[in-house]
Amino acid sequence: MSLACTIPSIPDLHDAALSARLQHRIDRKTKPLGALGRLEQLALRLGQILGSEAPQLEHPQMLVCAGDHGLAARGVSAYPSDVTWQMVENFLAGGAAVSVLARQHGLALTVVDCGVARDIAPRAAAPGQPQLLLRKVARGTQDASTGPAMSAAQCAQAIDNGREVVRGLSGNALLLGEMGIGNTSVASLLLARLCGVALEDCTGAGTGLDAAGVARKRAVLAQALAANERAVEPLDALAALGGFEVATLVGAVLQAASERRVIVVDGFITGAAVVVAARLQPHVLQRCVFAHGSAEPGHAHLLAQLQARPLLDLGLRLGEGSGAALAWPLLQSACAVLREMASFDAAGVSERPAP
Amino acid sequence: MSLACTIPSIPDLHDAALSARLQHRIDRKTKPLGALGRLEQLALRLGQILGSEAPQLEHPQMLVCAGDHGLAARGVSAYPSDVTWQMVENFLAGGAAVSVLARQHGLALTVVDCGVARDIAPRAAAPGQPQLLLRKVARGTQDASTGPAMSAAQCAQAIDNGREVVRGLSGNALLLGEMGIGNTSVASLLLARLCGVALEDCTGAGTGLDAAGVARKRAVLAQALAANERAVEPLDALAALGGFEVATLVGAVLQAASERRVIVVDGFITGAAVVVAARLQPHVLQRCVFAHGSAEPGHAHLLAQLQARPLLDLGLRLGEGSGAALAWPLLQSACAVLREMASFDAAGVSERPAP
Repeated sequence: MSLACTIPSIPDLHDAALSARLQHRIDRKTKPLGALGRLEQLALRLGQILGSEAPQLEHPQMLVCAGDHGLAARGVSAYPSDVTWQMVENFLAGGAAVSVLARQHGLALTVVDCGVARDIAPRAAAPGQPQLLLRKVARGTQDASTGPAMSAAQCAQAIDNGREVVRGLSGNALLLGEMGIGNTSVASLLLARLCGVALEDCTGAGTGLDAAGVARKRAVLAQALAANERAVEPLDALAALGGFEVATLVGAVLQAASERRVIVVDGFITGAAVVVAARLQPHVLQRCVFAHGSAEPGHAHLLAQLQARPLLDLGLRLGEGSGAALAWPLLQSACAVLREMASFDAAGVSERPAP
Repeated sequence: MSLACTIPSIPDLHDAALSARLQHRIDRKTKPLGALGRLEQLALRLGQILGSEAPQLEHPQMLVCAGDHGLAARGVSAYPSDVTWQMVENFLAGGAAVSVLARQHGLALTVVDCGVARDIAPRAAAPGQPQLLLRKVARGTQDASTGPAMSAAQCAQAIDNGREVVRGLSGNALLLGEMGIGNTSVASLLLARLCGVALEDCTGAGTGLDAAGVARKRAVLAQALAANERAVEPLDALAALGGFEVATLVGAVLQAASERRVIVVDGFITGAAVVVAARLQPHVLQRCVFAHGSAEPGHAHLLAQLQARPLLDLGLRLGEGSGAALAWPLLQSACAVLREMASFDAAGVSERPAP
């Protein structure tokens, strides 16, 4: 398959000298060696991404990509597709979880219509208010249980849209969110196809299916895999099994990584976008921080595939970017510790005697 | 043993009507039922403590209690006792982890000399700066491996100090922190004596002992238990095996609970103070939020004894209140979700069809 979109190359961030300087700086802080646990590893990671011994997160951007799914007509979700546009309106009106959490943490909120079935009315941007971007590729994808969800050209368009959207955002940190009734199905399909995880292991209740509903969902997803059995390469799988919001997120991840932004990955669906992006450019993972482990069962398999350990484990399964927003203060803390904590020498604190 | 301090009575918070209203309010928010996981449980808890369907956290106070320990002379810590006063100075100068994190989150920081070996010079309070309170009971405790760490009168004084300090703090949320070289030993001793946990299970490396050091520490702690074998009631055990900072924290917890403040418990040492307070007044636990699970091995046993599940699991083992400060934004998020998220009705979002 030949696609019109361009995939940026993502260089290896490895810089042994910088890592050594960062580790030394962390170890000289007034605390027992390693006593800040995973916050120290996070500080090291953020310093590596931003290329600084005193990293500072600037103008963090919460990017929520929304789209609808042909598969939803097959009863794979507990909610109707209309909830996608209704929640987009809720994001913009400030009443959704991600709206509340973005306000709390001073995250600029951008909502992108990547392919919502209903047309969302454009609105004027206002300072400090959520921004709506219309980058609709089509009014929802096709039903993947009978053939490809989108064409190669549509997939390329969505990826390009994601890249272009990120180019237009300021700052050095991108938090990923999404909305789309049916999109846990998309994440399960991509995980099954690209990582070989069994559908039984990576298909869950989503927004709240009962056991019979989950069984029905699995059967539909098995049909989708069978109907697209030749789509095995990352971009082919994304087009055949993906969604417009997921493809837009793939583009956003690639662009953010190419600009060396910190990428804060929310849960299962944004994680699936990272899986695709990492298959195209493995070094994107060096730029990613995984916010939380979702209650959606496929997410643990996804994180294991990426050898990633998330910061929070709160049994969240909402999406929207809510987990990324909840984890955000930990990234700020990690940078603050690096920048502001005193060293043993500066504070005049005794060190442990040599053994 | 008769003690001069008064223990306030802590009533049962249980209010079935309020809990039902809170749960209904959470369930009507625009999200699948339960999709915010443990953040929803936290919101329910905070609403119950503050007695409101729209709880608001006000003027949060980080209280760091410091003291020295006679046991430290027995080599139970990797660091010398001088580090206690040096770190108190570091807290006040703004260079310690808790200083940095308190600044990040707008937590007012109060440091109390509860019984530091060296005298800390008083200083004038300045708005927005850490506050030092001198409530020194003595210049460090006695060596508990040869007899009681403190007298009953000293223990009562420290508890009263904690109550009086909290009475002087504004707001409705108290975050607990501590500093005291040797105080993981105190926490292990209290856990062993009051909860019957074996010393092998609840004694760890503290600030960084090696395996031989941990073995030595265990032997010293076994001597302390033997030297104080009749101190089995909570206040007796606190006096015999405790520390001035821990006893002051016990008073602080009791006072905060009696005023229906939210109590954010940091790690192993502040947790041990809560164990003592809960033995005196079990309903204090209804007012507690446990911030993180420490890498210090005794902490998991302590949390199991209290049937508590902490919010964060980041492998921290620093103390100072650093884990409580890191968890703080989650409490703010839980309240913001309750107060600010739209309901299905208000946002015009479709609900799932009846099954």
